[in-house]
Amino acid sequence: LILVCEHASNAIPQEYTTLGLPDHLLKFHVAWDPGALKVAQILSAKLDAPLLATNYSRLLYDCNRPPNAPDAIPTQNEIFNIPGNRNLSEEARLKRIEQFYRPYETALKNTVEAKLAQGQRPMLVTIHSFVPIFKAIARKVEIGILHSHDRRLADYLMEQSLNDTDYIVQRNEPYGPEDGVTHTLDWIGRGYDLPNVMIEIRNDLIADQAGIAKIAYWLTDRLLPCLSHPQFDSRTRQPA
Amino acid sequence: LILVCEHASNAIPQEYTTLGLPDHLLKFHVAWDPGALKVAQILSAKLDAPLLATNYSRLLYDCNRPPNAPDAIPTQNEIFNIPGNRNLSEEARLKRIEQFYRPYETALKNTVEAKLAQGQRPMLVTIHSFVPIFKAIARKVEIGILHSHDRRLADYLMEQSLNDTDYIVQRNEPYGPEDGVTHTLDWIGRGYDLPNVMIEIRNDLIADQAGIAKIAYWLTDRLLPCLSHPQFDSRTRQPA
Repeated sequence: LILVCEHASNAIPQEYTTLGLPDHLLKFHVAWDPGALKVAQILSAKLDAPLLATNYSRLLYDCNRPPNAPDAIPTQNEIFNIPGNRNLSEEARLKRIEQFYRPYETALKNTVEAKLAQGQRPMLVTIHSFVPIFKAIARKVEIGILHSHDRRLADYLMEQSLNDTDYIVQRNEPYGPEDGVTHTLDWIGRGYDLPNVMIEIRNDLIADQAGIAKIAYWLTDRLLPCLSHPQFDSRTRQPA
Repeated sequence: LILVCEHASNAIPQEYTTLGLPDHLLKFHVAWDPGALKVAQILSAKLDAPLLATNYSRLLYDCNRPPNAPDAIPTQNEIFNIPGNRNLSEEARLKRIEQFYRPYETALKNTVEAKLAQGQRPMLVTIHSFVPIFKAIARKVEIGILHSHDRRLADYLMEQSLNDTDYIVQRNEPYGPEDGVTHTLDWIGRGYDLPNVMIEIRNDLIADQAGIAKIAYWLTDRLLPCLSHPQFDSRTRQPA
């Protein structure tokens, strides 16, 4: 299992100041996925899985987008314009890609290829969080299990979550592959034929340590069986 | 010192179901001031002050509004319509007032009059919380010190918060008496000539126990001196 957290950090290097945003806004969802890293860190420890987490805010470059996506360097989110990302020169755009996307791309690629070279075929799980209220809609879903072309892992997790009493779990909610959010799944997961899934957690549920721990243990209980499940067992697979 | 928390609870009696809102929305600001009660409870213990807190959601009746205010039984908030409050009959409106406002009004009035009868003239402090992002503006203020006609206590607290390094403290922010939020201050505070102030806390700062404790201790350190300050010393006063 390899864990990825593309929106782990809200850090912005000094040279970019705050991209024209009020600095206290950087603690909220616009800059990162609050709580996601902490959940991913517990999963990494419990599942003995490497975790690749970005070190910089998605405002600089959204590592879950390919460089040609219009929102790779977002000029706005649900609510806010991002002044420092408007009218970027081609040079500035390329600098962002080199500075923030390529290191992530290379690190993830190397991690996957090292596993494949050892004759393992890891699963890929990405951890995200989403806002509870979006465009005047209160989102009821608490955990989203998102998949793109490869639905093996999502099907398995959904099956384990049928009639779950802890959380409201839904497939491809509160958004899905049609919204352009499955870049990592498509590029690495599909690209290397790794079972892959994106887990989205409503961020009010992971706003404190108790909530983070509860959901991390819930996810551990559901991901652990995958590791020994014949369908996902890396030992039955050969390097590509 | 008497503490009041008008938006302490998000509870709704079964007969009102959820007023037409999705039930998971009730945990957010629309239904109450998240965190405010917990801060007020610590203040109550530290300052040995009675706390009057409502037991029901402000969606049913906003106890910080007089019965004739158009938003006493709100039909919408910043984001959401509240279907169960639209087109209320006069009978239904009166029932809300009797059920949710009068008991609060009576309890607060009795508490204040009992103190006055003992020759004390208490200060009145109300505790609220506000959303960090409102109508696409990220609010920079962290603690608002609100006053209406009586600015004695607010002036004193603002003076103590000059150059504060813990919080961004501002007077009559993120809103003020012109927004109709000082009903309790005007009715009880001005009505009985009690020094009074309304304290508004940005709710992301009190989303966990550590944040709640930090701000409660910060407020305690600033309210405690008021209790022995000659300007507010109840022993120097006579019943009205």
